[in-house]
Amino acid sequence: MSEQHIMSAFDRDLQTIQGLMVKMGAMVEEAIRTSVTALETSDLELAEKTRLGDKAIDALEEEIKHETARVIALRAPTAIDLRTILSVMTIGAQLERCGDLAKNIAKRTPLIAESTEIAGAFAMLRNFSGFIEKMVSDALDAYIQRDVAAAEAIIRRDEEADETYNTIFRSLLTHMMEDQSTITACMHLHFIAKNLERIGDHATGIAEQTIYRVSGELPDEDRPKVDVTDTAPKG
Amino acid sequence: MSEQHIMSAFDRDLQTIQGLMVKMGAMVEEAIRTSVTALETSDLELAEKTRLGDKAIDALEEEIKHETARVIALRAPTAIDLRTILSVMTIGAQLERCGDLAKNIAKRTPLIAESTEIAGAFAMLRNFSGFIEKMVSDALDAYIQRDVAAAEAIIRRDEEADETYNTIFRSLLTHMMEDQSTITACMHLHFIAKNLERIGDHATGIAEQTIYRVSGELPDEDRPKVDVTDTAPKG
Repeated sequence: MSEQHIMSAFDRDLQTIQGLMVKMGAMVEEAIRTSVTALETSDLELAEKTRLGDKAIDALEEEIKHETARVIALRAPTAIDLRTILSVMTIGAQLERCGDLAKNIAKRTPLIAESTEIAGAFAMLRNFSGFIEKMVSDALDAYIQRDVAAAEAIIRRDEEADETYNTIFRSLLTHMMEDQSTITACMHLHFIAKNLERIGDHATGIAEQTIYRVSGELPDEDRPKVDVTDTAPKG
Repeated sequence: MSEQHIMSAFDRDLQTIQGLMVKMGAMVEEAIRTSVTALETSDLELAEKTRLGDKAIDALEEEIKHETARVIALRAPTAIDLRTILSVMTIGAQLERCGDLAKNIAKRTPLIAESTEIAGAFAMLRNFSGFIEKMVSDALDAYIQRDVAAAEAIIRRDEEADETYNTIFRSLLTHMMEDQSTITACMHLHFIAKNLERIGDHATGIAEQTIYRVSGELPDEDRPKVDVTDTAPKG
């Protein structure tokens, strides 16, 4: 079936909603970036700005929900058009969760600012957040382009995200075991690494929506998962 | 405005979808319960059953999404009817997240089964999971009854959930500081406590949908939050 057709009223509506989605994605990517920058530089003001910025992300999700409902009511789309409109709504919800997770990272900034510095931790988190931010950005691009191969590549990249998370987890565990005074700081840094890993899961969820949109099938959610369970030192 | 009116075609559709929501809620409550029971009794089979059961929860969310889209397309609801149908869709997404979190608790069972036993930890988690499960159940009841006062009470109960989480966090921290060999087990138990706390956040999100459905306004999301940030021992 050809994806080419004359721009219909539905297509114009869809472009408007996708525009909101792209805007929301850009805001989420910025939130991921600034939350980790604030943490690294102990910038409480930037952390607070990131935290407050989440309200605008939430408002955009509401707008997407209402716009999609309006389009469904007006156009009664079926088949691929219905899948498309539902997938945009789902992506809105995924991005909203990403925004929440970035906000929760930002909220830890004051605590991290006053706890023991853990050697190398910020560099690890900075690299990880860059990787995760790119996953979100590429997942949205793949969706817009309806590029199933790119979407599948992002789903595979989630394994690397899980492995990176596991590496950070083990590194923090080692710090804690070697020096008790790092325990509280490491618990909070672990929370941040876990939030980044979960944003990666949502990026994967967005990539899955590309496949759903094009094929009507969601890939089996039990994708290969590198679980820390198998690799963590036993206590 | 009176909520009483003759049963319309829309109302009948809505009852069908709410029926799916209630069914999904019951499955999520069971998943919360069995995930913690499996953990406490080292029951790997029950943990696996809980993990696999999440697929049925996900399938119900898909069904709710499609049914709501069908109703919007067919009835083109406006005002309170549109809010109602969108709120059911949002609750479906919240319950799906709760199911994921319970599944992730179940996945830790093998790991907890082979790590150091932490005195009192299971009892704390069991009580906490009971509290959280009731929050989910009561939030759905309040929604069905359109009971704003009950919904507000659930939103306030989230503070108690946060406090309980903080108590568990501090208790685990104490164990880790007193005895290094408990660090890995405590990290995993902390993850489980955090997941339960997040299920409580989703129950609060469900309660907020009752208020949105009735009033058209979402309560300010920055509800009083007891943050561990203020209370954790500094490391």
